[in-house]
Amino acid sequence: MTDYNVVRVGELTAWDEIDGVAPGKAFVEKDLAAKYMGLSVNSNAPGSQSPFWHTHSQHEELYIFITGRGRLALDDDVIDIEPGTIVRVGTGTWRALQAAPDTTEPLRWLCVRAGGATLEEVGHDGAKDGDRPYPWAQ
Amino acid sequence: MTDYNVVRVGELTAWDEIDGVAPGKAFVEKDLAAKYMGLSVNSNAPGSQSPFWHTHSQHEELYIFITGRGRLALDDDVIDIEPGTIVRVGTGTWRALQAAPDTTEPLRWLCVRAGGATLEEVGHDGAKDGDRPYPWAQ
Repeated sequence: MTDYNVVRVGELTAWDEIDGVAPGKAFVEKDLAAKYMGLSVNSNAPGSQSPFWHTHSQHEELYIFITGRGRLALDDDVIDIEPGTIVRVGTGTWRALQAAPDTTEPLRWLCVRAGGATLEEVGHDGAKDGDRPYPWAQ
Repeated sequence: MTDYNVVRVGELTAWDEIDGVAPGKAFVEKDLAAKYMGLSVNSNAPGSQSPFWHTHSQHEELYIFITGRGRLALDDDVIDIEPGTIVRVGTGTWRALQAAPDTTEPLRWLCVRAGGATLEEVGHDGAKDGDRPYPWAQ
């Protein structure tokens, strides 16, 4: 059975206000009907910060920062966020972030979470078909 | 124990050529020491396509398209890719993509994969701390 779902969240600037609310935050996993992962799409205006610290007991999270600059606190550590910074946060670690006050571009980021079973390496559950024609090849 | 890892892949334009190779593709989960997820950072020049169709028997994948336009084939379906298109692909579904030939901007995208255990809803394994001061608050 062909099994997929599509959500369209728009250009990066559309992330700044989602459903009329800024800072934009949208949990899209339900619309995607995702089984094994959760995904949020986020934008923080310069100077804004997480509404609270949080941690997870089971879920690993990947923070993927696309635009803007800021700081991410991880327990007692603080790291700089820049475009392309990707951070894995393991269970039990508390985290909070701030978009740098002295910047103009929103901090736009994705957070993916999963947990419960370790992942096989790339390719170990995959299959390739090098002979099937692509639908755009005429 | 504070548990995190950081990888820095740079600005979107840095994704176009990774380790001197275009189209850029980097699997970053090992550097992140990710347990439950895999993550690749990708850029396809206009007109380029997947080197082959592929499918997974266990892993669900989320394709997150950031810039550019193109098409994603899912078995016999083909959907349009635009900035902000997010697609969950379930197990057993074959997929391949093409960056539109008639565009100038690279198709830059992320692919996250996980599998093996269903995910609890947001907040069901989380904890908040609304009292802890932020390290950037003086």
